[in-house]
Order: sequence, then structure tokens, then C-alpha cells
Amino acid sequence: MTDSEAENALAQRVVARMRAGDSFSKWLGLELVELAPGRAVVRAVVRKDMLNALGTCHGGVTFAMADSALGFAGNGRGKVAVSMEGNISFTRPAREHDVLTLTAQEISASNRLLVYSVSVVNQRGEVVAACRGTLFRLEADHFPAHEGGNP
Amino acid sequence: MTDSEAENALAQRVVARMRAGDSFSKWLGLELVELAPGRAVVRAVVRKDMLNALGTCHGGVTFAMADSALGFAGNGRGKVAVSMEGNISFTRPAREHDVLTLTAQEISASNRLLVYSVSVVNQRGEVVAACRGTLFRLEADHFPAHEGGNP
Amino acid sequence: MTDSEAENALAQRVVARMRAGDSFSKWLGLELVELAPGRAVVRAVVRKDMLNALGTCHGGVTFAMADSALGFAGNGRGKVAVSMEGNISFTRPAREHDVLTLTAQEISASNRLLVYSVSVVNQRGEVVAACRGTLFRLEADHFPAHEGGNP
Amino acid sequence: MTDSEAENALAQRVVARMRAGDSFSKWLGLELVELAPGRAVVRAVVRKDMLNALGTCHGGVTFAMADSALGFAGNGRGKVAVSMEGNISFTRPAREHDVLTLTAQEISASNRLLVYSVSVVNQRGEVVAACRGTLFRLEADHFPAHEGGNP
Repeated sequence: MTDSEAENALAQRVVARMRAGDSFSKWLGLELVELAPGRAVVRAVVRKDMLNALGTCHGGVTFAMADSALGFAGNGRGKVAVSMEGNISFTRPAREHDVLTLTAQEISASNRLLVYSVSVVNQRGEVVAACRGTLFRLEADHFPAHEGGNP
Repeated sequence: MTDSEAENALAQRVVARMRAGDSFSKWLGLELVELAPGRAVVRAVVRKDMLNALGTCHGGVTFAMADSALGFAGNGRGKVAVSMEGNISFTRPAREHDVLTLTAQEISASNRLLVYSVSVVNQRGEVVAACRGTLFRLEADHFPAHEGGNP
Repeated sequence: MTDSEAENALAQRVVARMRAGDSFSKWLGLELVELAPGRAVVRAVVRKDMLNALGTCHGGVTFAMADSALGFAGNGRGKVAVSMEGNISFTRPAREHDVLTLTAQEISASNRLLVYSVSVVNQRGEVVAACRGTLFRLEADHFPAHEGGNP
Repeated sequence: MTDSEAENALAQRVVARMRAGDSFSKWLGLELVELAPGRAVVRAVVRKDMLNALGTCHGGVTFAMADSALGFAGNGRGKVAVSMEGNISFTRPAREHDVLTLTAQEISASNRLLVYSVSVVNQRGEVVAACRGTLFRLEADHFPAHEGGNP
């Protein structure tokens, strides 16, 4: 296995385990479309129980989908990484049955800090929201060496 | 009724109607603790289905609670107002059974734009998150004049 | 002149006038590298008087360059547009003599609100900062019709 | 000297040295009004060379003042701390000769991360901007033990 293959395999393992234990991401109905070290693409359908009083997708739901996407991208690098801060601009309402695709892309990775941008587009390719967020990396590995962990 | 009483009454009416129709805020279990024009305090308990893969409250859930709180505060002024952007710093994990109190306070109100800060504290008074968000006010009233609307 | 040529010409006129009257952008030494409706690329050299106590470029200077870049991009559309809010992630220090290139790209444009992302890279192509900001468009045109203004 | 007196003395020493070496904060004309561990109040007058094309204070100048204020507050705790990210809402234009008072207040302090809110008010007490920012603390002390450093 090359280093790059090992990094990809680690990302897949970590995110598979995360998704299995992530109750709220399950509620969001997130489908994993693409995963690579520092990158994750997820997809979800806006449901009736995700709507706000105006009948559009609650901004917190959109933010949560983005936060999950960047969490997958960053934790896939192997260290446990927690959200420190994030921001979002809502550019267009999302409505029931809309299919949202969220692409989290790494902007920067240092020892401790990972910065991601996340774009949110609907099934017509229209931008629904733009986000950025920072993860703080802890010392702990998702899979320590004795579990066949980080390469 | 004084102007101030009328403003308060309007805020109560608007937010009562919003909450009745806000599916996701219901899912969040938001209790309305205090409401005044430009201010809202809500409370919610962190449930198991709100947790992320690390077993702490998903950041999107916390953001959503804050977004609802400032939405109540701003819409209570009478005009339909939609979230334009927001940001959040996560300062401490929230855990299952924690009781979060979110206080949305108006920083600024112009004809079109309302800016709020939202603090999130747990049952021990510890700060869990700090947020700020902007609402864009549409022309539409929640209760037009012929429904006995805005004073 | 096609519509597209007219839009480009307007952007050039507006930004030329803005730059002539923008004292602080002059202080920043901003060179205009590229300009199109909804897009601006500017370049500046980090000077000694832009440094902070650690001897690196003051974060406020970087933010200011980004704010100018998105201001040019958005005002170039013809309406007077003012900064409402912005955010920045600092991913790497910039140092004296570094040449920063800032690319402001429109994410979204509605009647009232323009949202931009701005990337900041140094002369080695390394990302120094990532920004996003919102402009609020006023009714006023930079060049009213009687001055041969908006197409 | 009590612990609290020692902490205050350290903050004064650190910020005095920082201000002496901070070229851009000098350009901003920042006056230090109040300083305590985790808190700093600074004041500055808006000058003609700080204005943008609309004749109001450039948003980058306001952000920079806030960034300096929170930098003083956080570095005053003793460890070298660098800006990681920040955000600002502009709620009202500042004009030439306006006197801005910026109050940076710690929201949260962990081993590595310090979060601050900064309010910006003018001489009439009107809110000009609201900010939040995060500092990342390095291992290094401003004054190592052999220089009579951190208590």
C-alpha cells in the first residue's frame, strides 16, 4: 500500500466508525458521496421535520450538515478533531424535498488546526449556503497503533 | 395599551405563531423562557439523538438552537425576518442531559438588518458557545393591519 | 457595446473612482490586477509599518486588504454597496516583503445582498487567509443615469 | 504580591512591550484605557487616512483595532498568542474625528484557545461594530522564568 492509499484507507475507516456512532448525522440523513483525506462530500434531502416557521429548511439544519461534512473531512486525517468555530452565509432558501450536496474542502492543515470551506448547493446547482469552520486536533488517534492505526 | 405594551404583545403573538409552525424548533425541544422586542431566552435539554460521534452535543444542534433564539427575538419585532448569516465559537462540550439556556440580545436594528448576539450556557452557568447572527427584514408583516397587526 | 461589455466598463469606471477616493486602500498600496463584475483581484506588498508585535503582518491589515477587494468587486456592479459583516481565518503568517494576492469572487448576488469569498495567497502560492464578507446594496447608483450611468 | 496582583503586573509588562513593538497598532493610534488579565479597553480617533471611498472609516481599520484589543487582552495572560480567526458585524458607520472605544472581553480560556468578544462604540455610546475572535496560544512565554516571567 502506498502512503496515499494508506491515508485513504484510514479516512474510510475513521469516517465509517464515526458515522456509525453519530446520532445526529443519522437524523440528518447524510449520505457519504465522496471521501478523501481533507475532503468530504455528503448529500441529504430536506425533510418536512427540518423546516422552520417560514416553511424553508432551518438554518441550523444546513449548518449542521456542513459541520458534519467538515468533521468527516478532518477526522479522516486520523486524529480526533473537534469543531472550534464556524460561520455560514445563507444565500438562498432550501425547501422540502431539495437535495443538498455539501462539499467540505481543506484550506489549511497545521499540527493543531484544520480549516475547511464548505459549499452547499441544491439539485439545480444553485448555492444555498457558504461556510467555513475550524477543527482543533487532539493528541488522540481514532485508531491507535495497536489497533492497526495511523500509518 | 402603551406603545411598549403593544410591542410586547406583538412579539408574543408573532412568536407563538412561529413556534406553532416551526417543525425543527419543536424537534429541538425549545422552551421559551423570556421574550421581549429584540430579546429572547430559550432553554433546551440535550438529548441522546442530538449527539455526535464523540458523544457530545452536535455543533449544528447548538447553532440551530441559537438561530431559533435570534429568529424569535427578531421576528418578534413584527416584520418577517430571515437569517442571512451567523457564526459560532464552541467553547466547551455540551453533554446528554445538559440544560442549555440561550439568550439572544439585539446589538443593532436598522430598517433592513437586525444583528444579535447569542450566549449559550449550561446548567452550571458555564459558557458552551458564543454566537452572532444577522437577520434580513422583508417588507411583509407577520400580522398585517387588517389582522390587527403592527401598532 | 454588448451588455457584458457595458457591465465591464461600468465596473472599471466605478472602481477607478473609488480607488481615487479611498485613502486607506491607498495606504495599503493595493494594486488592481483584475476586475470584472462580481470579481476583483488585488495585490499588495507587506511593509514594515503593517507589522504587529510579533513581526508578522497585522491581521487587521490582511482583513482590510480583503475588505477592499470585495468592496471593489461588489461596487463594480454599479450600486453603492457597504460592508455589513465579514470573517477571516488566518492560516499562515505573512511577513515583511511578502506579496499578497487577494481574489474576491462573488458567491451570491440578490437585490440587496452580495456575498463574497476572498482568498489570500503569498508569492509562493501558499494560503495566508480565507475570508467571506457581505455587502449591503443601497438604492444609489455610483453613476446615475444622467452621468451616463448604469446600463 | 498576591496571585491576582502578579497576573495584573504580568499583563501590564507584556502589553507594554507588545505596544512598543507593534508598528501597525501605533499607526492606528491606539490608546490603552484599561488592562486586566483577559480584558483590554483601547481608544482611537478615526483619522482622514483611515477613510474609505465613501468617506467613512474603512472596515479593515475597525477590525484591526478590535484585533489589537483582543491581542492585548489575550497576550497579557503571559503566553504568546496569535490570531487564528475573527469576525465582525458593522452596525453603523464611523466618521472622521469619531472616538472609538473597543472593549475586548474574554469569553473562554482553555490551554490552547482564547475566545474574545469585542464591542466597538463611538463617543455617543452608539455601537459601531461587534466582533469575536480566537487566539491560539503557543508554548512560549512573553517573559520566560529567567527574565522574571510568568508567576
